[in-house]
Amino acid sequence: MTPQSITLEIKKKKSFLCIGLDTDITKIPRHLLQTSSPIFEFNKAIIDSTNKFCVAYKPNIAFYEASGEEGWRALKLTIDYLNNNYPEIFTIADAKRGDIGNTSQMYAKVFLEDLGFDSVTVSPYMGSDSIEPFLEFENKYAIMLTITSNRGSIDYQNLDCNNKKLFQLIIEKSRKFKNPQRLMYVVGATKPEFFKIIREIIPDSFLLVPGVGTQGGSLSKVCEFGLNNQVGVLINSSREIIYASSGMDFAENAAVKAKTFQEKMNNILLQKKIY
Amino acid sequence: MTPQSITLEIKKKKSFLCIGLDTDITKIPRHLLQTSSPIFEFNKAIIDSTNKFCVAYKPNIAFYEASGEEGWRALKLTIDYLNNNYPEIFTIADAKRGDIGNTSQMYAKVFLEDLGFDSVTVSPYMGSDSIEPFLEFENKYAIMLTITSNRGSIDYQNLDCNNKKLFQLIIEKSRKFKNPQRLMYVVGATKPEFFKIIREIIPDSFLLVPGVGTQGGSLSKVCEFGLNNQVGVLINSSREIIYASSGMDFAENAAVKAKTFQEKMNNILLQKKIY
Repeated sequence: MTPQSITLEIKKKKSFLCIGLDTDITKIPRHLLQTSSPIFEFNKAIIDSTNKFCVAYKPNIAFYEASGEEGWRALKLTIDYLNNNYPEIFTIADAKRGDIGNTSQMYAKVFLEDLGFDSVTVSPYMGSDSIEPFLEFENKYAIMLTITSNRGSIDYQNLDCNNKKLFQLIIEKSRKFKNPQRLMYVVGATKPEFFKIIREIIPDSFLLVPGVGTQGGSLSKVCEFGLNNQVGVLINSSREIIYASSGMDFAENAAVKAKTFQEKMNNILLQKKIY
Repeated sequence: MTPQSITLEIKKKKSFLCIGLDTDITKIPRHLLQTSSPIFEFNKAIIDSTNKFCVAYKPNIAFYEASGEEGWRALKLTIDYLNNNYPEIFTIADAKRGDIGNTSQMYAKVFLEDLGFDSVTVSPYMGSDSIEPFLEFENKYAIMLTITSNRGSIDYQNLDCNNKKLFQLIIEKSRKFKNPQRLMYVVGATKPEFFKIIREIIPDSFLLVPGVGTQGGSLSKVCEFGLNNQVGVLINSSREIIYASSGMDFAENAAVKAKTFQEKMNNILLQKKIY
């Protein structure tokens, strides 16, 4: 998928919402537990009811590994369902991988080729050769952590290094990797003050923004400095949407919640005159 | 497993070797492909032939995810086989995970509880609450990346931050996490000059050292500054041992290679008068 086609979809749906499929077998409605793959059946219902209001889905791989073999089967069924039924939707494997070259190569192949995701999140700590294997696939992306939305993000990401913040240096160096046009960046919504600095380094890159909602981040603050004139932002919400209700009507309630996000985003796009 | 019991095993076997089970379905002897789980059968043969010469095994999770559901089955069979037959052996899930708290909690449960590994490798970039969930399990460990063995490790890990190197600050801050006694550290063998600095901060912690052999690190240089008076080091070798031969005799050849490592380690322990 090209950045242009993601932007087209955003403008068509008036939404830059990404829905996080953090599907926890202990939290899904009980009536699904009798199906052959409860995690997949939950995802399928959520996808069918919410896809009008979002442009991306992001399965969080930990939640699938938690069910072992079964979880991998559900993950495969989910990505196949998305690719077969909603090819216009951008897909993100939220895996936060990164290892020595030959190992990153394996992870890249698993997520981008075998499973067929459009992108995968990666952790920068091991440097260029831990990320470049993810950048070798045409029209696929590695989404690199910069400033994350959790409490511990201040421990290291914001350290002063050579008169800059660590996350700034990390972004700057990443522009010298092979195929930097295939890099996107994770920037947590709970740190809106950093969006301005980040947009000065990477004005055109797509940003994936977790942390709105349950974690406390504000949509309007993120958009103030995060949006560029091509939108350039995907706002993720997971628990607030997919667990909007735990009853038979979980999918309908998730759609209501997703629509609320979409409407707010439509207003922001109107204000910013991005059509 | 306690640090004392790992040390006891090291002294008994006169070895601080960890064997990396980077089991690649495209590299294992062809005759195994007819079995119901070729990856597990390969691992089982390697474990049976080499366990006399090593104290730890480290499956690299990427190589198992590469085979999807089948891979997870092979991983489970492998760790069950180790725990049932060689409970004195220390086991490491080389996963390099790290995510926001609730997600790290899931990964920790998968590797330390459900699968039953003694430890899991973690990436520090997201800070305290991304690692602390891995430190909640008694007699289990998180092994945190500090200086890695790959080329890209110089991109970020060695940056000057507040008059120190980034990896120094990362280690120092980690000592303030909850349950720091359950932290071990990854230090790459290709950077022997850093062992002295690292031992000044964490004289007593176990270090897991990849990068000897195929990646170019030297065993004697690592031991010069890395060993403490309780040994405190696990040297990992993967490809050099497990792919010593690709024929019917692969397990025997792996044992010969592992024995060579053990003999070198025995000499080092004798020289250092650690019995």
